[in-house]
Formats: sequence, C-alpha cells, structure tokens
Amino acid sequence: MKINIKEMDEFLVELLSEVGKSLLVDSKKDKSVGTKSSRIDLVTNFDKSTEKWLVGKIKEKYTDATIFSEEGYGDVVKDMSGLVFFVDPIDGTMNFVKRRDDFASMIGVYLDGKPFLGAIIDVIKQEIYHGGPDYGIFRNKEKVISPKNQSLPEGLVDISWPMVVADRFNSQAVVQKSSGLRIYGSAGIIFEHLIFGREVLYMSYLAPWDLAAGRVLCESLGLKVSTIDDSPVNMLKSQVVIVGTEKVVSEVLKTVKK
Amino acid sequence: MKINIKEMDEFLVELLSEVGKSLLVDSKKDKSVGTKSSRIDLVTNFDKSTEKWLVGKIKEKYTDATIFSEEGYGDVVKDMSGLVFFVDPIDGTMNFVKRRDDFASMIGVYLDGKPFLGAIIDVIKQEIYHGGPDYGIFRNKEKVISPKNQSLPEGLVDISWPMVVADRFNSQAVVQKSSGLRIYGSAGIIFEHLIFGREVLYMSYLAPWDLAAGRVLCESLGLKVSTIDDSPVNMLKSQVVIVGTEKVVSEVLKTVKK
Repeated sequence: MKINIKEMDEFLVELLSEVGKSLLVDSKKDKSVGTKSSRIDLVTNFDKSTEKWLVGKIKEKYTDATIFSEEGYGDVVKDMSGLVFFVDPIDGTMNFVKRRDDFASMIGVYLDGKPFLGAIIDVIKQEIYHGGPDYGIFRNKEKVISPKNQSLPEGLVDISWPMVVADRFNSQAVVQKSSGLRIYGSAGIIFEHLIFGREVLYMSYLAPWDLAAGRVLCESLGLKVSTIDDSPVNMLKSQVVIVGTEKVVSEVLKTVKK
Repeated sequence: MKINIKEMDEFLVELLSEVGKSLLVDSKKDKSVGTKSSRIDLVTNFDKSTEKWLVGKIKEKYTDATIFSEEGYGDVVKDMSGLVFFVDPIDGTMNFVKRRDDFASMIGVYLDGKPFLGAIIDVIKQEIYHGGPDYGIFRNKEKVISPKNQSLPEGLVDISWPMVVADRFNSQAVVQKSSGLRIYGSAGIIFEHLIFGREVLYMSYLAPWDLAAGRVLCESLGLKVSTIDDSPVNMLKSQVVIVGTEKVVSEVLKTVKK
C-alpha cells in the first residue's frame, strides 16, 4: 500500500485540531455520564459523538482502512494487516468529567502491524503531539528531540492507582527507587510527559486505543514500550504495558513479579 | 492591630505576580539542585532567591510581622500572636525540576492565630487564587464560588504517595471508596483543584508553609481542614492534614486508623 505520510500526518492533525476545539468547549458543559465496566469507568455523550465523527472522517478518506475504536463505531478488527486506525475519542474521561483538565484525544495508525503515525491532543493546552518513525515527532509545528535516557532514581513514575494500591508487579518497589509517584489519570497526558522526559515511566493496564498513538510517538523517540514479561506487544488486546526510557524499562523488567 | 485587608490582598497578588513571571522563565533553565532531608527532598537556587526576595518585600511593608518560611530567610516564630506570614517560595520543587509544570508559590497570612489572607500562584497557568474569610476568594479578578459538598464516591482524591504505598491511616480504603486517586505532587496545585471542586480530598503530611495559604482559601469556601484525629490544626508544626468537602472529611475521619 502506497501512503503519503505527510498528507496523512496533516490529516490527523486537522482532525484532532477540530476535536480539540469542540472538547475545550464541551469540557465546561454539563455532561450526560454513563458507566461501562464499573462505576469508575465512565463514558459521556461527548465520547460517543466525537468517536462517531472521527470514524466517519477516517472512513471517508481512507476507504480501505479498518478502525479499532473505544466506543463501538469502528470495525471488528481481526488482524493487523493493511492500514489500521486506533481511535480514542476522549482519553481520561474521568478527568474530562471531574477535573476538566488533563484529558486527550488520540489516533494511532499502524501499517501491516508496524507503528506508522500517531497523534495526541492535550485539549486544555491545545497542543498536538504527532508524527512517526519515518517522519519525526512534532509538538504542533516544532520538532521534538529524543528525551535523555534517564535512570529510575532520576525520574518521576506514573503507575495506575489500582496497580500501586494492590502492589501488583512489585510496583511499590519501583516507586521507592524512583524520584516519586505521580498519577495523572490519562494515558495521553502521560505519554506527553514521557516524550519530553518529564516522567520516566508509565505502567498500566491498557486497551489498544489507550496505547496505539503513544506507542508510535514514544518508540519514534527512542523510548521503550514493553509488556510485563518482555513478550511482543499485541495491538489487538488489552495488556499491562511498561513505557519509559531504555534504562528504566530494563530496571523495571528486573523488578516486576510476574 | 488595624490592617487594610484590600491593600494587603493587592500586595500579595503583586508579589506573586512578580514571582510567577520569574519562575516561569526559571522553570525552563538548568537549576542548581540540592537535597535536604532525603534524596527526594529538593531545593534549588531559585527556591532560595525567591524566598529571600519575598521575605525582604514583606519585612519592608509589614515591619511588625513575623515570617515563617521554608528555606530559612524568615524568623523563628514561637507563637501565632499578631501578624504571621507563611512563605513557600516554590511549592512542588520536584515538579519544578522534573516536570516544569504543576508547581506554585504561596503566601498565607494569619492574624492572632486566625486565617486572614492567602494567595497561591499556579506558575504555568499564571493564575493567582487569593483572598480570605472576610474578603472573598478570587481567581485573578474573578470571584470564586464555593464548590459543591461532594461525597467521597463522587470525587477524585489526592493523597501523598508515601502514605498510600504504606497504607497509612487506612488511606487505601479511602481511595477504593472514591472515584479514583490522582497524585499531583504540589500542595498549591491540589488546593487549586479543591477550591474548584475538581478533587474532593487532599491528605498529606504538611509543613506550616505547605498548608497556610491553602487553608485560608479552602476554609473561606466552606471546605474543611482537619488533623487526622480531629484536633485543632497547629500552624507552628508539621502534621498529617485532611482537606476536603465537609462530607468527605467526615467520611475520612471515620475511615482512618489513628
């Protein structure tokens, strides 16, 4: 498949720019909030309308693509052949509802199973982080350079709270060795911190749409994305993922209890 | 003592506005970083220079005041009589160094032991939250209204990570009852979330300069500030503090193991 990468990157930026403008307004409104798998797994009318709009736009332009998305407007994706788009209309819905800050919208694109392009918008900052391994990574129009390969004691770590509270995977030992724990509650926002070296580790149970865009950006900048047992990441299922600098991921893989 | 409250509020806003402009620039610079009580208790050249400048300005205008400050440029404060200023030049120094976001500068003023005025600047947002019980609370010039008296299941909680990891005070049970845990790592930033109802609880071991300004703002807006055993807050010592909505603080006091 022959794809114009620049054209696709511009298309993703244009989509998230539109979404970002709407969600900035929507974040201040009252929302119709429902729950999914548990009382703290939220979905709003805006998650649904945003995804529906994004899926429609992608289908219109990339007619051969399949779409893996959070709220059910995409396709049933059975394998990673060809062009696959992952869509997370609102990442950090709890933050969107409660904090009205620190939430994102994300699109990841994979070509024959390989990371191709990713785009994340920090809605409140109105900044878009985008690009891919063969294109470079940008914050809006400014090129992003690879963060330093910091060690665990040098940096802040972000681990999902159910994992820390239950001390799953020896995660409390990881925290103790670091500069401290932060919990931001949105994968997209944490990927933003990672690509600028402002946190050095993210460890969480992630669905494909949570991971897809961030994986593209992080790997393009030399960060490591690993499963908990160092097996290949499977983009079609939910799994515990470790993302961080090379030094930190290697240290964490030694620390975790499987 | 007769004090012009409006004049003092404007003075605090002017001071933090100056500090905020400097720290915004300083946050992007390389810093000279030292440690205090442990390897993760940081202090920079900017903490010191900012405090020195603030203490000088306060002494110049309020010659009778005593000043309780973090880095040692203030006075030895033995009691709360008269006018006492609490100065935290950079709150969230770890964030200032690592994240270059989510840090604050804070001044709290007490008159004969009672909360009088407080001011907090969110440096990256360049927003100042200020005022007192007899004056009202403002975000820059806009009046802040009291947040809703949300219950624990309705809101996000922020608890310092050493407390959660060690499950001190039954804090993990508190997290499980809430909408989720966030850890922002700066008292000032968390007070900001509390006064707008974007988090419902902050629980941490706080020094007087960490608590002083936030206590004034929170209590003025009907939020509760309590010690862990519901004894009066002592502004001259470090202690575990619970800050939140009335419903949440009451629920947490029932849950904690002393």
